[in-house]
Amino acid sequence: MTVLVPYPTLLDTVTGVFRARGVPPDRAAVAAEALCHGDLTGMSTHGVVNLTRLYLPLFDSGRTEPTADMAVVADLGASVLADARRALGLWSASQAVELASARAARYGIGVVTLRGATHIGCAGYHAARAAAHGMVGLIASNCGGQRIAPAPDGREPLLGTNPLALACPAGDRPPFVLDMSTTVVPTGRVRAAARAGEQVPPGWLAADDGTPVTDPAAFDRGDGRLLWLGGATETGAYKGFGLGLLVEVLAALVPGASTGPLSSVSRDDDIGVTALVLAPSALRSGFREDAAALFGAVAGAKPIDPRKPVSYPGWHEGERARWRRVHGVPVPDELYEELRSISPALRAVG
Amino acid sequence: MTVLVPYPTLLDTVTGVFRARGVPPDRAAVAAEALCHGDLTGMSTHGVVNLTRLYLPLFDSGRTEPTADMAVVADLGASVLADARRALGLWSASQAVELASARAARYGIGVVTLRGATHIGCAGYHAARAAAHGMVGLIASNCGGQRIAPAPDGREPLLGTNPLALACPAGDRPPFVLDMSTTVVPTGRVRAAARAGEQVPPGWLAADDGTPVTDPAAFDRGDGRLLWLGGATETGAYKGFGLGLLVEVLAALVPGASTGPLSSVSRDDDIGVTALVLAPSALRSGFREDAAALFGAVAGAKPIDPRKPVSYPGWHEGERARWRRVHGVPVPDELYEELRSISPALRAVG
Repeated sequence: MTVLVPYPTLLDTVTGVFRARGVPPDRAAVAAEALCHGDLTGMSTHGVVNLTRLYLPLFDSGRTEPTADMAVVADLGASVLADARRALGLWSASQAVELASARAARYGIGVVTLRGATHIGCAGYHAARAAAHGMVGLIASNCGGQRIAPAPDGREPLLGTNPLALACPAGDRPPFVLDMSTTVVPTGRVRAAARAGEQVPPGWLAADDGTPVTDPAAFDRGDGRLLWLGGATETGAYKGFGLGLLVEVLAALVPGASTGPLSSVSRDDDIGVTALVLAPSALRSGFREDAAALFGAVAGAKPIDPRKPVSYPGWHEGERARWRRVHGVPVPDELYEELRSISPALRAVG
Repeated sequence: MTVLVPYPTLLDTVTGVFRARGVPPDRAAVAAEALCHGDLTGMSTHGVVNLTRLYLPLFDSGRTEPTADMAVVADLGASVLADARRALGLWSASQAVELASARAARYGIGVVTLRGATHIGCAGYHAARAAAHGMVGLIASNCGGQRIAPAPDGREPLLGTNPLALACPAGDRPPFVLDMSTTVVPTGRVRAAARAGEQVPPGWLAADDGTPVTDPAAFDRGDGRLLWLGGATETGAYKGFGLGLLVEVLAALVPGASTGPLSSVSRDDDIGVTALVLAPSALRSGFREDAAALFGAVAGAKPIDPRKPVSYPGWHEGERARWRRVHGVPVPDELYEELRSISPALRAVG
């Protein structure tokens, strides 16, 4: 079913694929790390499976520019507005976080807001760069003009799945990394179930009248609405939709990128990405110790079931990544063969 | 059941009550507006009902200081860390937004992060001040050391209901104001149902094994867990919990306020509040027009039921406030009598 591929091998393979498409080596390495992050942490819907499905077609159709540099539109010190000029979002979102972190070190807060971006992969990968600097990083990305989920009372799709991520250091433990679509699940989870011939749980999809839909194929047929976090109105659908709009505001309205409700075509071009970094240690002492204590207390909280300890978003992903860096990354057979066909030098473990 | 009280009368009454407790006139007026905002917009669980239940006891027990000024701990231009010194949170959260807005006008972004705060009322009221300046305002507030909801796999309460708000102008329409607890509902909704002898819908409370609990009294008895936005694990409980932690990080860990997991006593003292404001118009032209177009398109989206138009968070509240400013604010009889007992000059409409 799966083969174990050494992490450095997987990384080199993907880096090589991006380099072959004209992406400069340093950028290709960052983009590959961002993409392999999905497989390394277990968020496989956002991993290497998307290389041939999502990213390579962007090169083929000229929707991404391998060598484009971001063009700064305005720079007020703590804030920078830039046009990403269709550079690979897997790289430019990280570049935005690094620049925002540098500004945060000086001003306590830094924000880099991009228009003209392309798909960034796992938002949490980029946010976690700030945590590695001992800072708090937030990433909001809309889906450009793409419309996927309707408003709770609306008939037609309006917004994308609009991911939101926040990362914070947690001492010796894996960093806190919340990395979420503002819909109940991202579309990748629904389509993976459809490919596997599985049903999805009630609460992911619904008919217009609110009846739960458990056939994942209904989503692409157009007779299953993808629900916002919160599900039904009485359990918070408007909060989830509001969070989707929060991301649309921060990520796209602030920099002037495309937005779902206003786009003439439903396609994920001209994506907006906002990277916001806070540097608490520039404002006070003790932040890193307090963060370690906070997440230590969360992880140490009394569980309902002693076999299932309490954790926080990012903990499982961090532990999984640590194991896989040493022992290899499980890659489904089909994906492995696909990668081998692009990059024949690829080898599994052992 | 309810009496209509002219809005200016309600405002004057509450302002008078705060002044009588030693709050300076300008601050009392802001605090009263923040409190009456709940009644004006229909978020009545956060309105004047809390005057005698929540705010006046803070004065009586010395947990709030009527005349305290915030003490700036660090100022890096775009970011300010301050100790609110137990000033009335209904006022200090707005003061934080005003200061953050002034910094955002210069740096494109501004953040004021407070420790030592007290209960801020409706987070959306404060965030909306930034929207009134044509900016985007975010408010995150934790509940100090108070523990209300457990982690999804945890036995004991760990965090508060941790409100998050974001406001953005929407042209001639009411501003977009997302104002949400990160739990499915705030505790006020559960307790209001308990007082009214009503059941709550499945999805608000659950037993430790996940069985839905519909008796709201179970919450204060300790045998009904308040769920995070997302409800069950498979529909996103860890996203809601993650958002609760996101608020704990932004609001409390950044400024060094009390946090639920680390506090020795579960009480909402030393609350952390972070006010973050973005000034897109300092970075680019066309922001206000784009915002008006975006929310116009959302409000104009095709509804499922033509009698129930699509709206966005803040729209209903804004429309309701407009009506009530003219015609009066409905106040339940019992609350009206309570207010008359404190302030005998209070009169209803007509």
